[in-house]
Amino acid sequence: MSRPSLEPFLSARAVAVVGASTDPSKVGGSVLANLVAGGFPGRVVPVNARHAIVQGLRAVPSLLDVPEPLDLAVVAVPAPDVLPTLQQCVARAIAGAVVISAGFREAGPEGKAREAELRRWLRGQPLRVVGPNCLGWMRPAARLNLTFAPGMPRPGTLGFLSHSGALCTAILDWSRDHPVGFSLFASLGNQADVSETDVIAALAEDSETRVILGYLEGVADGRAFFEALGAAAARKPCVLLKAGRSAEGARAVSSHTGALAGSDRAFDAAVRQAGAVRVDTLEELFDVARVLVPGRAPAGRRVLVITNGGGLGILATDAARDAGLEVTPSSEEIRAGLRAVLPRHAATGNPVDLIGDATPARYRAALEALAGDPAALVVMLAPQAATDAAGIARAVLSATRDRTGPVLAVLAGGARVRPGVVALEDAGIPCYPFPERAVRALGHATRLADRRGRRAPPAPAPPVDPAALAPALASARAAGTLGLLDGAPLLAAYGIATVPALLAKTPEAAAEAARALGRVALKIVSPDISHKTDVGGVVLDVAGPAAARDAAAEMLTRVAAARPQARLTGVLVQAMARPGAHELLLGTVRDAQFGPLVVVGFGGIYVEVLKDTATRLAPVSIAEAREMLGELRMAPALRGARGRPPVDLDALADAMHRFSRLAAETPGLVELEINPLLAYPTGVAALDVRGRLDHEEES
Amino acid sequence: MSRPSLEPFLSARAVAVVGASTDPSKVGGSVLANLVAGGFPGRVVPVNARHAIVQGLRAVPSLLDVPEPLDLAVVAVPAPDVLPTLQQCVARAIAGAVVISAGFREAGPEGKAREAELRRWLRGQPLRVVGPNCLGWMRPAARLNLTFAPGMPRPGTLGFLSHSGALCTAILDWSRDHPVGFSLFASLGNQADVSETDVIAALAEDSETRVILGYLEGVADGRAFFEALGAAAARKPCVLLKAGRSAEGARAVSSHTGALAGSDRAFDAAVRQAGAVRVDTLEELFDVARVLVPGRAPAGRRVLVITNGGGLGILATDAARDAGLEVTPSSEEIRAGLRAVLPRHAATGNPVDLIGDATPARYRAALEALAGDPAALVVMLAPQAATDAAGIARAVLSATRDRTGPVLAVLAGGARVRPGVVALEDAGIPCYPFPERAVRALGHATRLADRRGRRAPPAPAPPVDPAALAPALASARAAGTLGLLDGAPLLAAYGIATVPALLAKTPEAAAEAARALGRVALKIVSPDISHKTDVGGVVLDVAGPAAARDAAAEMLTRVAAARPQARLTGVLVQAMARPGAHELLLGTVRDAQFGPLVVVGFGGIYVEVLKDTATRLAPVSIAEAREMLGELRMAPALRGARGRPPVDLDALADAMHRFSRLAAETPGLVELEINPLLAYPTGVAALDVRGRLDHEEES
Repeated sequence: MSRPSLEPFLSARAVAVVGASTDPSKVGGSVLANLVAGGFPGRVVPVNARHAIVQGLRAVPSLLDVPEPLDLAVVAVPAPDVLPTLQQCVARAIAGAVVISAGFREAGPEGKAREAELRRWLRGQPLRVVGPNCLGWMRPAARLNLTFAPGMPRPGTLGFLSHSGALCTAILDWSRDHPVGFSLFASLGNQADVSETDVIAALAEDSETRVILGYLEGVADGRAFFEALGAAAARKPCVLLKAGRSAEGARAVSSHTGALAGSDRAFDAAVRQAGAVRVDTLEELFDVARVLVPGRAPAGRRVLVITNGGGLGILATDAARDAGLEVTPSSEEIRAGLRAVLPRHAATGNPVDLIGDATPARYRAALEALAGDPAALVVMLAPQAATDAAGIARAVLSATRDRTGPVLAVLAGGARVRPGVVALEDAGIPCYPFPERAVRALGHATRLADRRGRRAPPAPAPPVDPAALAPALASARAAGTLGLLDGAPLLAAYGIATVPALLAKTPEAAAEAARALGRVALKIVSPDISHKTDVGGVVLDVAGPAAARDAAAEMLTRVAAARPQARLTGVLVQAMARPGAHELLLGTVRDAQFGPLVVVGFGGIYVEVLKDTATRLAPVSIAEAREMLGELRMAPALRGARGRPPVDLDALADAMHRFSRLAAETPGLVELEINPLLAYPTGVAALDVRGRLDHEEES
Repeated sequence: MSRPSLEPFLSARAVAVVGASTDPSKVGGSVLANLVAGGFPGRVVPVNARHAIVQGLRAVPSLLDVPEPLDLAVVAVPAPDVLPTLQQCVARAIAGAVVISAGFREAGPEGKAREAELRRWLRGQPLRVVGPNCLGWMRPAARLNLTFAPGMPRPGTLGFLSHSGALCTAILDWSRDHPVGFSLFASLGNQADVSETDVIAALAEDSETRVILGYLEGVADGRAFFEALGAAAARKPCVLLKAGRSAEGARAVSSHTGALAGSDRAFDAAVRQAGAVRVDTLEELFDVARVLVPGRAPAGRRVLVITNGGGLGILATDAARDAGLEVTPSSEEIRAGLRAVLPRHAATGNPVDLIGDATPARYRAALEALAGDPAALVVMLAPQAATDAAGIARAVLSATRDRTGPVLAVLAGGARVRPGVVALEDAGIPCYPFPERAVRALGHATRLADRRGRRAPPAPAPPVDPAALAPALASARAAGTLGLLDGAPLLAAYGIATVPALLAKTPEAAAEAARALGRVALKIVSPDISHKTDVGGVVLDVAGPAAARDAAAEMLTRVAAARPQARLTGVLVQAMARPGAHELLLGTVRDAQFGPLVVVGFGGIYVEVLKDTATRLAPVSIAEAREMLGELRMAPALRGARGRPPVDLDALADAMHRFSRLAAETPGLVELEINPLLAYPTGVAALDVRGRLDHEEES
């Protein structure tokens, strides 16, 4: 069910302030005062039951008394009056309301009940509501300040949304001293209606917004967020800071996959898959935004560092490597050009070191010589006594005007470099006081450009065998908890091979199975035993039916002696796996927010200790699967390290893709894990499987 | 050979400026101008061959013409004149010189030769020299500015040394806008004599210095640096930024250990072991310094976050967990006290949320209620329209005056919070604009306090069997390259067990060996084969002499067929290792700077891929060995995860200690690696060993 658009919030021309106080130090009074002081050119109507004139403006006692049409209402009334006010909005055909009033979910059981009632009523109404319990909404270019925070930020191209009002007031205050301007500045409060997902979707369409920035504490609906963010990221860069990294959602998990793929990792995966980027700190959020505003996208991972001090250059190089950037020299031809214009002891590699006493002319000559190198630039300056920072800034501007890639500046110092900072920032070149911050911001911008460039088309479904799927699914659902034997047909329906195995309830059946399977391993099967090795419940490499019968009989006796209380289902007889495999984990778990996730990683017994995993929302394409593998610390081993052959990455990525379809398409699948998944130089095979399905089928 | 002290550089009373120009825009002229402008109360003597009066001061044509005694000379003459000038210093019994002149190692082959000559001459002279090619030396409290950078930083308690002059000029300029003051500000240039190690040692003794800060690009002598830093860290906090993290020293390595323990990791280990802390960015260096200056050391890892905005609180909590800090609530008693003074919807856990409209009185009441909680405090404020930031600052100061732990403030915003920032910083409380920076700085300070608190006493030597050691060493040295068979006696002399093994040159000898060893594994031995499994060169679990003879014969035939060119030495017959071990790596490699290192980590075939290792300088005490194990990602597995029993950490740490003594005490040992070291619930044993010794014995 699609809700009405947020358009009225972006282009309102007539606004009512409900609860407009005559006292501008009160919340309702300050909203009116701010709106007027901001210079809003549209109509402003105070609504006040007791005064006919409020802050010099003619007021009306109720929304219902306003004769003309209104686009928006700002609501700053006591919490119990909010719902009646919104009902008046609907009666007056007002399309949007910003509810600043507190006293809802954040305020004890009574507030919770009030908010629940509000949400119930809102469903299906032709009214969009921002809030309640928010700072409000600002559209600086339209001079629309619908908040109780005085002073508007500069208009600009950053569309900013926040789940924290306090953060908004801090950023507003901070932004006045910094070169940032906003197309939208929105505090979303309790999100009874308009959520971060709605605002991201609106900003994607908004022509004034060039970069979308968000501070989030969670998402209302994981899949909807993922879709909206993906659509937005296809149009403009999106940078998100999500707080609550360490707080994991409560979730009953029985698999490694579930323990590894916390909700925060699911958010991470969604952001990455959508083609957006996530930062870790508030400072980074704006550091990255300033790289993106000029619209100069990195064409690759190379960065050229130009400096007049070796120390700054080394720090930038360290930071660049940490950020996944490449610091390689220009072509020999370009370096020859550099040598022609630089002093003898200058360095023409990367960093390019212009030496401490570099003049504006030297900066200009070097940057002109580097014109043919498409790398991103980080131009740095450490001031000496005679340094002309403003002159160097002008030289940088003139010599980099035609570059298409990012240009960042690091002017390390204080008063001596300030004239340069001002000149550069006025011209839209982001300046940073320290090399590491600039380089980290460039790293994020580069990662973002890379992700936006290679967003994969939706994965085509692999061939699934419907005749095999239906019975496999029915039997799996009946079992509830899956093991290798119930899981294998389900995997087979999606074309994923398991190492063949049979359940033998008697030693004779084990002999029969060994006849069919060749050299085999025997493993005890019991609902009461999880560490089979400890009770002598595993025997490897048994050759021939007779040996298998004896080994099975001995095992049943041995285990029964070690664990007299355990119920013994039988012995799993499994073909011996070929040697030479890497052991991976491939799993899925259903996240409460984001639905089924796919996790791949280092398998075997160290999986949770090493946590070497990559996570995505299911399904994943083959290309995404290969990306996931590339993120693992063990990636070099998969590509063949220390003389071992590489694994069959095609087969592995194909299996991941198929598994992700299974995860996405199987109703009721709570978790499913292949561990280990054996990855060979040729082919892959599941050696063990465990999983869990809901008993009732989901619709 | 001990060099004279740096005392003259810290308390000079008479200074000559050699090369003092009449033109203060030239280097030699600016040094004189800066020294005079700085208000140096001692005597200043310009030395100028051509002018009798320089910048209004009576000059002498040569140092030899100065009648009175001098403490220091600043040398700013052309490079070829530096050595003769220093010779005059010696003739005049001047104890120290700061050589600003460039034209040495940094300036091509001619400069390199000049510096080599300077170093040769300096050896054994009674003169200490800072530089050449440095910005100079500043002692603000003594008004001693011996640099060509105008303007002195504020006097204070930070002793700062730097390997980069450009960084110094940037920091000087930056520091004027920030609340930092210096006891010493030293640019060390090419370090022909005075090195970072000398300055650290001098600052350790300097009563004006409370915190030692360094920007380093390397160290002159690793072990001397380690000793000096350890002695300094025992007296005051030391924080270092080392650039060149990613540049690994060129070193021929054949072991995993060598590849894993790069020079930068050795530096890391030295800093940690010495009880100092290393930061990654320039900003962090000063962020941490400001936590340390007040001298309030963290008593543990707990931090209490007090905020008036939830968003800031969550960001601080995330950052705290990343920094290894604990964010747990106060005692129930203290929380009851908080509840008594805070509004109903305030949060009294951790973070403590005072709600957006918090007043100075509310901050004061909350902080007074928390007086009994010894945790470090991060007090945060997001400004609202009516916020009285200065009043809140005063409340924070008065309510935290008696705390012994660190107090940090985060005033997020700009103009609205500035009065609070000024009040807090004037009183010595460090302020940060963003929560993450404050918390990270606190994290470093906490790590530092922890390291300083538990610096281990020198490890007592384990009992070594000298009768076994001498022949083992002689035979190992003769072999040059060590394997299990040559390495085992060496390890045994230090009390480290190996899994018993014998070399069998014939199938009959293999039978003999199996008779002695029980169930065995057979492994081909050939100087030409490194991946034994690939050629069928490994057979496990062979029972009895007859089976061993047959298996050895088959193996020799099989391998010869697979690799007809390979020389086959024989078959290694090794007792089957007990199952149930974790496979670790324990290695040593000799670092060019720091001497023998010890590395422990995840072993087996993934060692270089997972890089889960901890590194220290050898030797390590048992306590240090346990610390190393605690740093591994696999630490939870060693402590017993997922139902597996814990390994014998006592035996493991003891083996590490013994191994580290072997590493430290064995002359000529280039590298030695046990991989895997099998760590069991009871005991440890080396399954395979490889190593390399220099052929000539070192003295």
